Amino acid sequence: MPNTQIQIFDTTLRDGEQVPGCTLNTKEKIEIARELERLGVDVMEVGFPISSPGDFESVSRISKIIKNATVCALTRAVPNDIEVAADAIKSAKRPRIHTGIGTSDSHVFNKLRTTREKVIERGVAAVKLAKKYVEDVEFYAEDAGRTDNEYLAMVIEAVIKAGATVVNIPDTTGYCLPSEYGEKIKYLQENVKGIHNTTISTHCHNDLGLATANSIMGVRNGARQIECTINGIGERAGNASLEEVVMIMRKHNDLNFDTGINTKYLSEISAIVSAKMNMPVQANKAIVGSNAFAHSSGIHQDGVIKSRDTYEIIDPEEVGALDSSIVLTARSGRAALNYRAKKLGFEFCKDELERHYQAFLNLADQKKIIQDQDLIKLFSVAATG
Amino acid sequence: MPNTQIQIFDTTLRDGEQVPGCTLNTKEKIEIARELERLGVDVMEVGFPISSPGDFESVSRISKIIKNATVCALTRAVPNDIEVAADAIKSAKRPRIHTGIGTSDSHVFNKLRTTREKVIERGVAAVKLAKKYVEDVEFYAEDAGRTDNEYLAMVIEAVIKAGATVVNIPDTTGYCLPSEYGEKIKYLQENVKGIHNTTISTHCHNDLGLATANSIMGVRNGARQIECTINGIGERAGNASLEEVVMIMRKHNDLNFDTGINTKYLSEISAIVSAKMNMPVQANKAIVGSNAFAHSSGIHQDGVIKSRDTYEIIDPEEVGALDSSIVLTARSGRAALNYRAKKLGFEFCKDELERHYQAFLNLADQKKIIQDQDLIKLFSVAATG
Repeated sequence: MPNTQIQIFDTTLRDGEQVPGCTLNTKEKIEIARELERLGVDVMEVGFPISSPGDFESVSRISKIIKNATVCALTRAVPNDIEVAADAIKSAKRPRIHTGIGTSDSHVFNKLRTTREKVIERGVAAVKLAKKYVEDVEFYAEDAGRTDNEYLAMVIEAVIKAGATVVNIPDTTGYCLPSEYGEKIKYLQENVKGIHNTTISTHCHNDLGLATANSIMGVRNGARQIECTINGIGERAGNASLEEVVMIMRKHNDLNFDTGINTKYLSEISAIVSAKMNMPVQANKAIVGSNAFAHSSGIHQDGVIKSRDTYEIIDPEEVGALDSSIVLTARSGRAALNYRAKKLGFEFCKDELERHYQAFLNLADQKKIIQDQDLIKLFSVAATG
Repeated sequence: MPNTQIQIFDTTLRDGEQVPGCTLNTKEKIEIARELERLGVDVMEVGFPISSPGDFESVSRISKIIKNATVCALTRAVPNDIEVAADAIKSAKRPRIHTGIGTSDSHVFNKLRTTREKVIERGVAAVKLAKKYVEDVEFYAEDAGRTDNEYLAMVIEAVIKAGATVVNIPDTTGYCLPSEYGEKIKYLQENVKGIHNTTISTHCHNDLGLATANSIMGVRNGARQIECTINGIGERAGNASLEEVVMIMRKHNDLNFDTGINTKYLSEISAIVSAKMNMPVQANKAIVGSNAFAHSSGIHQDGVIKSRDTYEIIDPEEVGALDSSIVLTARSGRAALNYRAKKLGFEFCKDELERHYQAFLNLADQKKIIQDQDLIKLFSVAATG
């Protein structure tokens, strides 16, 4: 049986970019969009055009450039949001509008101060309006994770009837357990008319450390798209990590799922996003942390020398991990520093390299081993100085 | 029904400390052990005494000091390891020896180059030898995650018969899916004679981002101890994060589990471990990341102002998170810096404060907002200079 293909919907440039300190300019957004296209994502959500003229400009510019992925823009269920988003993505080869509204009691009654009926009306109207501009309309039921399943099914059925091609079931607060989230998707699969001609999407937050497990449970129960970000960045504790969900499906053939992601680019894009957004990745981050493939204890080193698979389930080359045997210290030269900088996505002229090299030597005198995250910090701080 | 209490087995000072660059001296290990005791862990694994005289010394000193937690030392299934460990923990009020051997085909045939029968013999002999020194003996079946369940059950039954009080089922390589790991624990519950008088322990690694979900699935299927570390540090992508598994059980009353952890100390101990081990925590780390409770987008801020629970499932005070409304910039004074430093576990004399303040101002001129991880880096680099 061939593997079922799962769509990867990257939202690094929207949910990831809205985090404090992460803001990118248009040029940087375009660079990351190009990297995401090379990585092979199916959909990239690249902004929330109504939020600022700069964001509109970025979405518009990216729409003109990207050829091999759907370009998606976020809106609320508000006419002006949708019209502005439609304008921003009008040049995209494969445009998508992502609209929606809160459906949990907390959102309906406390935030929106309205009724359940009115929420459905607004959701349906938003989808219908978006359909005037694009064929591909995704609807999100905000805080679906805490929405009771019966009402959620009513909302989803109504927006599908109105023309939604994708329905996103976000665990907005990151509260769901995997079993609970899986059951929610299953309930929708079994109780919503028209769901089988629609793509169900997961959008899981990591407040309890469960975003990855929840996304996989969603797919096992019928979802066919995962929303995620590079390095798991995003609001609060972030989103499901693209690199984790992709590698789980790649390594677990028993699941019979796969994606179109070129995993060899994972390490590189992780470093680029980390550097440009000034969001260091911790050493023990799965797949892309600087220690993810470091075997440190004597017992483990002994095992790995005898046979790599004793302690290693992923060949570092499979995700393009840097050769960890090159350790940078105060004894390293300019060439070694420049080589590593390039791998991390930095390009320096001769003067810049010299300046960074002196800063590197100062740091290396204080710390014995300089790791990738130290370099990213060093280069980024200097760049904003 | 009262909640079932789950034992928290912290291995920050063993699995966490063996990571490159994390090495602590005895004084630092003692400080962290005291913090773990204050946090309320049930068991702390504090070293691998045979590995070095320094490690032996640390385990021995900590054993004399800790009164409210079991103190555990790691060994291989090797007589000398066990004798040395027994000597190191001989002063502990509640000593435990943790011994074990690899059980997967990769470990049995490639690493140990022996037979399945001999592995059982060595495991049984190790437990029997450890029982001569202490009543409380935990056995680990290394790489249990990739060991077939039938053979694993034979190993576990044999070591329980030999006297093991706790049996640890490690997913050493972090390969298991939550469903798979849960089924493994269930299989042992149903097929191992004597298992109901023994505590089953989880020990999950995070190579695919599933350590937290796997630990919780273990407990839902009968495990009663979780092995974990502060900030999820440990070999490669690290271990299950203590703060994540604890907060899942605290917030999900429907699970009917709880622990004895004083959650108000979670943020503080996270910062202390991060600083002393020079392992920065990424901003989007669940529970303890500097952005874990930051609401950044306009939509989210609007929701939170109307009602906190719109986007927040944990009250930051519940985990002792720093008041995020105090933002440090180049306009902040010495008092603000000192206040935040103390919250992060640093104590400075007047001269030190002045020196750090000048370095802080230099950094603040380059970066608009100085976050906790920047401060930890700043103070730590300066301390090792």
